[in-house]
Amino acid sequence: MTPTDPIKDMLGREQLRSVSDARNLLFSELANLSIQTETIPLEHGLGRISGSEIYSPEDLPRQNRSTMDGYAVVSADTFGATESMPGYLEISGEVKMGANPHGTVTRGQCFKIPTGGILPEGADAVVMFEHTVLVDDKMIEVVKSVGSGGNVIKKGEDIKKSAQAIPKNKKLSAYDLGLLAGLGIVEIEVYKKVSVGIISTGDEVAPYDQPLPPGKIRNINSMVLRNLSYDCGVDVIDYGIVADTEEMFFSTVQKAVEETDLVLFSGGSSVGVSDLGEQAIARAGDPGVLIHGVKLKPGKPVIIGFCNQVPVFGLPGHPVSAAICFDLFVKPTIQRISGKLADHINRELTISAILKRSINSAAGRLDIVRVSVEQTDEGYEAHPVLGKSGSISSLAKADGFFIIEEPIQGLPENSTVEVFIYK
Amino acid sequence: MTPTDPIKDMLGREQLRSVSDARNLLFSELANLSIQTETIPLEHGLGRISGSEIYSPEDLPRQNRSTMDGYAVVSADTFGATESMPGYLEISGEVKMGANPHGTVTRGQCFKIPTGGILPEGADAVVMFEHTVLVDDKMIEVVKSVGSGGNVIKKGEDIKKSAQAIPKNKKLSAYDLGLLAGLGIVEIEVYKKVSVGIISTGDEVAPYDQPLPPGKIRNINSMVLRNLSYDCGVDVIDYGIVADTEEMFFSTVQKAVEETDLVLFSGGSSVGVSDLGEQAIARAGDPGVLIHGVKLKPGKPVIIGFCNQVPVFGLPGHPVSAAICFDLFVKPTIQRISGKLADHINRELTISAILKRSINSAAGRLDIVRVSVEQTDEGYEAHPVLGKSGSISSLAKADGFFIIEEPIQGLPENSTVEVFIYK
Repeated sequence: MTPTDPIKDMLGREQLRSVSDARNLLFSELANLSIQTETIPLEHGLGRISGSEIYSPEDLPRQNRSTMDGYAVVSADTFGATESMPGYLEISGEVKMGANPHGTVTRGQCFKIPTGGILPEGADAVVMFEHTVLVDDKMIEVVKSVGSGGNVIKKGEDIKKSAQAIPKNKKLSAYDLGLLAGLGIVEIEVYKKVSVGIISTGDEVAPYDQPLPPGKIRNINSMVLRNLSYDCGVDVIDYGIVADTEEMFFSTVQKAVEETDLVLFSGGSSVGVSDLGEQAIARAGDPGVLIHGVKLKPGKPVIIGFCNQVPVFGLPGHPVSAAICFDLFVKPTIQRISGKLADHINRELTISAILKRSINSAAGRLDIVRVSVEQTDEGYEAHPVLGKSGSISSLAKADGFFIIEEPIQGLPENSTVEVFIYK
Repeated sequence: MTPTDPIKDMLGREQLRSVSDARNLLFSELANLSIQTETIPLEHGLGRISGSEIYSPEDLPRQNRSTMDGYAVVSADTFGATESMPGYLEISGEVKMGANPHGTVTRGQCFKIPTGGILPEGADAVVMFEHTVLVDDKMIEVVKSVGSGGNVIKKGEDIKKSAQAIPKNKKLSAYDLGLLAGLGIVEIEVYKKVSVGIISTGDEVAPYDQPLPPGKIRNINSMVLRNLSYDCGVDVIDYGIVADTEEMFFSTVQKAVEETDLVLFSGGSSVGVSDLGEQAIARAGDPGVLIHGVKLKPGKPVIIGFCNQVPVFGLPGHPVSAAICFDLFVKPTIQRISGKLADHINRELTISAILKRSINSAAGRLDIVRVSVEQTDEGYEAHPVLGKSGSISSLAKADGFFIIEEPIQGLPENSTVEVFIYK
């Protein structure tokens, strides 16, 4: 990994990167990180990311099975059967649930079979009860024909032995775990759970759960960042508020870099503290700062760096700015170091909604607009939730956000926007 | 709660209910259940449902604060200021972060102030550094005017004392918890976490983690239902596979009704075992069975009942059928007894997608079609994932499903469908 040169203007001043430039730079550095796997019991697998492809050790189902309650038959015996001209079959056996059938079905015969029962030798289809009439306890009338394979799930039809059951880098769902249970797999290889270290800085920040000293504000960011991280399925170490001395801040960042897989500190959006953030990242490991400042509102002063393979993010102090930087930079980073495939990240689902008021945006800057979403008979409506970047109550009211790209100078009312929905 | 009469046809046979009838009947019974709240620490609140409205105990912010690095001014002093005709102000003080300011700003004066700093007495706005030129350490030029309140977040502007911070019945997000931390709230009232009891039945069902006896199939449903339940944020008690005797099954359902808030058993889609499910619910408590069978494919044989205020669901044995009944009936039930508002449930977000092949559907029956979703430049495409109802691998591949309502007889290729996305 090599630090990239900052973009400079004609006077030698550093220029802010666009959000997409910054993301591309970040993601290309992340591609160089190596991430580790571990083996866990299947039943702890929900939401974990598969660390290897998983192949089926056997056919599922293992045998041909009925998908209906009825009679296992030789399908040719039913051809042409109708209500006015039924076929007659002798009931020569019965398949019990959960047991291998005894005997063979021959022409002119049938076995009673329950849903899920194993198809007996000789039979190639099942006639549903509803298409038969019981003549006596040894004979049925078949009133509708069934083709070969009808009402049967064949051996290996769900999944064949040696076929891929689960691809690598997939977030495991309840259904994935069900499929693996169906194949008798008891342990799986997954990527290690990421741990996130969270540090809050700023002379003005005080613990939320104690009486507030004059002039201070309560620590909102640690609570928001911790829970946004939990939503990404990671473990969190909260290093609390570090505001006493510069050395204390530097050493806490260093400690977090050593103890966790990804470090977030917030606060320090003012010029002086912003410098401290740069210094902290530079001291904590190589290569240090990658990006400082992006063309983004809110969220401009974000700092992104790598210290000895650990991504470190300096987020703005304002809760909304910090949250937006989390969505744009931290969340995709967590996903990548958690083992999620790049193309899964870009495939975050959005909903189309009609913007219910016009929004201004400065050209050359990416704007994030938070909205509440309402479902109407005509589709979704997006109502901008306005609030200064420090307004946490606006975030609590929002259902998601849409992006106004750099070149766009605002959107008129009734534009269609693609809304990213908060979970 | 009174059991409703079954719908019967002219010959006195019971008719299947439509899915929407069944859901409406279920939801109206659920409205009668009383659900309890508990008090928990704020930091354990993520994903919990608020059990009461929460009002702000104080103004946020508590004082007027600067949203920029700059100078606190009397805004009238800046009116008309331009680069060619700047206003001159004396720097008469400085606001420190996290401390109450000392002194008052009078006409012709200003205080240096950082982002987040408390606005000093006398000042009503902040001029950004970028709109000033430092003449010497006691004087600035202001080159752009600022209106009253400019670059200031006012006391109570985020949220006012006594205003509602969080409504009742809201699923608490990271942002909600951040808002409450900002208000110094350390404990919250939330609905109690629901516990779900899961029972698997069927002579053919064997534990997934042991060698498979001949004729048996592995227990997929317990794994799927447990993890779908976890996705709904509940606790789970797994009662394992109960297949030895009828009495064992009845007593296990009874035990689960006594020990948990909602009971699921699966298996027993064949006629005989289906009767057992009805009997188990009838024995376990009043009023007993509410619904048996719905016009749904797959998922027809679902049984829904209430035993002493505990909803009990008999789900089909086929994993896909069981999963679909979970989505349509169990998940909204869990949400309601977890305290989520009815109208939040109906507001599940869907995405519009273009159906990429035609689908047949019998009129009078609701069909659930599982799809994988692809994002293209033209929007989302929905590709049906076909598979018999016993095919768990089809579920593992699907991203979500859409519904073909009862009266519709199928959809042509390129129809627009609303897809419910699996998380």
